[in-house]
Amino acid sequence: MLTGWIPGAGSIGLGRVPRMTDLASLDATAQAELIRTGEMSATEAVQAAIDRCEAVNGELNAVIIPRFERALTEADGPLGDGPFAGVPFLLKDLDGTMANEPLHAGTRFLKDHGYVAPQSSELISRFLDAGLVVIGRTNTPELGLVTTAEPETYGPSHNPWDTTRSTGGSSGGSAAAVAAGVVPMAHAGDGGGSIRIPASECGLFGLKPSRGRITTGPEVGEAWAGLVARLAVTRSVRDAAALLDAVSGPGVGDPYWAPPPERPYSEEITSDPGSLRIGFVVDPPDGASSTDPEVADAVRATAALLESLGHRVEESFPEALADPSSLGHFLVAFGAWTARELDRLGEMVGTPVTADDVEAGTWAVAESGRSVSAADYLAALDGLHALTRRVVSWWAGGFDLLLTPTITELPPTLGQFAATPDNPMAALFRSSPFAAFTAPFNTTGQPAMSVPLHQSSAGLPIGMQFVAAPGREDVLFRLAGQLESAVPWADRRPPVWSGV
Amino acid sequence: MLTGWIPGAGSIGLGRVPRMTDLASLDATAQAELIRTGEMSATEAVQAAIDRCEAVNGELNAVIIPRFERALTEADGPLGDGPFAGVPFLLKDLDGTMANEPLHAGTRFLKDHGYVAPQSSELISRFLDAGLVVIGRTNTPELGLVTTAEPETYGPSHNPWDTTRSTGGSSGGSAAAVAAGVVPMAHAGDGGGSIRIPASECGLFGLKPSRGRITTGPEVGEAWAGLVARLAVTRSVRDAAALLDAVSGPGVGDPYWAPPPERPYSEEITSDPGSLRIGFVVDPPDGASSTDPEVADAVRATAALLESLGHRVEESFPEALADPSSLGHFLVAFGAWTARELDRLGEMVGTPVTADDVEAGTWAVAESGRSVSAADYLAALDGLHALTRRVVSWWAGGFDLLLTPTITELPPTLGQFAATPDNPMAALFRSSPFAAFTAPFNTTGQPAMSVPLHQSSAGLPIGMQFVAAPGREDVLFRLAGQLESAVPWADRRPPVWSGV
Repeated sequence: MLTGWIPGAGSIGLGRVPRMTDLASLDATAQAELIRTGEMSATEAVQAAIDRCEAVNGELNAVIIPRFERALTEADGPLGDGPFAGVPFLLKDLDGTMANEPLHAGTRFLKDHGYVAPQSSELISRFLDAGLVVIGRTNTPELGLVTTAEPETYGPSHNPWDTTRSTGGSSGGSAAAVAAGVVPMAHAGDGGGSIRIPASECGLFGLKPSRGRITTGPEVGEAWAGLVARLAVTRSVRDAAALLDAVSGPGVGDPYWAPPPERPYSEEITSDPGSLRIGFVVDPPDGASSTDPEVADAVRATAALLESLGHRVEESFPEALADPSSLGHFLVAFGAWTARELDRLGEMVGTPVTADDVEAGTWAVAESGRSVSAADYLAALDGLHALTRRVVSWWAGGFDLLLTPTITELPPTLGQFAATPDNPMAALFRSSPFAAFTAPFNTTGQPAMSVPLHQSSAGLPIGMQFVAAPGREDVLFRLAGQLESAVPWADRRPPVWSGV
Repeated sequence: MLTGWIPGAGSIGLGRVPRMTDLASLDATAQAELIRTGEMSATEAVQAAIDRCEAVNGELNAVIIPRFERALTEADGPLGDGPFAGVPFLLKDLDGTMANEPLHAGTRFLKDHGYVAPQSSELISRFLDAGLVVIGRTNTPELGLVTTAEPETYGPSHNPWDTTRSTGGSSGGSAAAVAAGVVPMAHAGDGGGSIRIPASECGLFGLKPSRGRITTGPEVGEAWAGLVARLAVTRSVRDAAALLDAVSGPGVGDPYWAPPPERPYSEEITSDPGSLRIGFVVDPPDGASSTDPEVADAVRATAALLESLGHRVEESFPEALADPSSLGHFLVAFGAWTARELDRLGEMVGTPVTADDVEAGTWAVAESGRSVSAADYLAALDGLHALTRRVVSWWAGGFDLLLTPTITELPPTLGQFAATPDNPMAALFRSSPFAAFTAPFNTTGQPAMSVPLHQSSAGLPIGMQFVAAPGREDVLFRLAGQLESAVPWADRRPPVWSGV
């Protein structure tokens, strides 16, 4: 609550904020409105987030590099008239490239070299132009390669819903901080599920935009062949929509462009989605794993909910998702991309990365990629694109959305992803089933979201994934708005919560 | 002229065509209109094109695989209500993938295996949906790798303006056929200049669309990292605009999408372009070659013409075009793509390609690509994307268009591109200066056009290239329409001309 823990309480404007307001519970849109109307200053908003961070971060290890003093200085300065002017925010340590700030990507290599980014990426510049104030950097697995935030360099992040469990990954630190109320939303990126998986495990809304919706410039072109999409994890749907409105659109010289939306996403979320044709699937089509019974029940309950909302729901999915060849193509490309990533880190620092500089699993993946020829990589990419055309044809054939579990399990306990001398790639293998439903839509470039619709009997979050046709975030946002109204989740609080 | 050489003259409707009309001189839009209004039948239009082909192809070797009987059968059947219903057309032997038709890509490998395509590519399907009737396939260098159409398998195509000279390439057969009046327009593709260069050398209009404007589906995804764009060579600007309107738009599962146009391109060509800010450059910024004096004069004359039309013209170009590192990155990627292409041909036939199956230059390029690792390929791609961002920033900085020569030379005499035992890659080296102004805009994915504005003192065509910002074909078409009105070229006839 405001009283008592905001330094400067009673200063200009604060008297107008209801004294018992739990600022932690307000989404970014609400916080921005308080600041815009003068009911709260940006400094107060940022200081409150810093206080919340200090209250819970010892338990969560979500924020690995605080930036409190600079944030307060910035909050006190001109913030412009962006939609989120003065709202506290966190950047993920992977791809959260901000000028003159550290960037470690979860690696001890960049950490030990004290790497500092020379310039901001276009997305981070747009976050700043939107008025967001960065109070720190959040934890990520090394290079974001696995689905938990337990890097050797910075140690594990803990899930606010059960601190013995993973936050999911790779945007796990961001998700933990948002779930615990530190900030209303935080930067996240998704190359195989890294927005959606932690959103699911931490009870948040997480939307991965279409390929090309958000520029990767200026520092990268089509790294990972365009599989990585960036945005944020949020608690409210409207925050995600307004943030995407603020930061999307092509950058100079982008290789990929998404078709522009017909109207702002902020307008979609209150628009009637109509009667959508929605297919759903419970178990991973690849047959490599099966879905936890509680998660499976949640999918069926969601299907029933959707029917009650007037949608046409049937058990159906793109058969191409069951094609076993896709995993082989993906692994060839994944190794190659990881090898290139290590080379790129070396170029950033001016010293090649050695086996001692990164985790054993990272090195092993990169080494697997070193033996891939360019021609074999291009063949794998051809395979992934052929798969994409087959998968997307399911939407072209008449479906509006695919419903799946975001992940097939409940949030796993920490420690399951540790490498062993016998199995350096243990974390990769353990991650694989978590990405079974999410990674295919990085390959295809489709927009997809995890919506925090359910909880397990023990109170653990269970996210539902919806996947739209390429470029159709509008369909996702219309349904998300409808779902948030039908089964609101804003009042759910995890055991570790930074507010009142 | 119609009288005398159209079988069936005097049959239904033909009496309404003015007797002295030179059908060869009519563009596709005009021919379609005659067919639509019943003044000419599709069969008559197609037979006339076949007759014209037979009249000149012995001199030109433009059409390598005729398809006359099937074309006449199709012209006699239902053609739908597409904008070009009944208009004769030619497909390039590279990427002109039509179901149940041969596809040799200029290689003796596919020719000797008698390869027949199992399905049409999406673009070819759209050509057919537009009502075009394919009367044959046109010559191309092997895999389209060089800037002349002199494959060992099918022999050289000859330029209708001077049959001792090259047509340019790779879409050389298509350009020769259109320039000689056989068909009003023909399919072409451009991975480094292969629409624009033959358009320049044969006196045609040739527009390379933006990356993602036309789908490459279903057979390929982002082959050549999206550098290849396809459309046609035409004589009139309106044909190119109407054809692009008819066939553009995303295919199912495309990796690249171009932003949709605000209105049809056919409407742009009669719209006032306003006062455009146009930079121009005479000599290649890479310094590796210089521009022929007659071509240089043409650029300066074009700059003066543009000024007289109210545009703001200055000598300026993207400095990044002078960066010598870009060629190195391109050559790494080019080798890798070629190696993959040979692998793909092998997959199509079920037998690996050997050194004996392709030209020495093709094999040498592919071999150079075999030694490239995936990580090095990805590094080269990063380099090309970084270059792209720097090049495109020139447009983002305020310029509407860049004017360059399309090629720096006059059309070269045939035989200059032949490999020798000492220099199997001679054709590649000879091609390099021809692509100096065109290839960078395949890397960047920008739309670019060659406009047949000039002729040398000996009467050889000289094309001028204009390059717009990504996705801005609209700007190109508005200027092209203005230029075509200001300095019309429709009445120019090469010495080898199939009409009256």
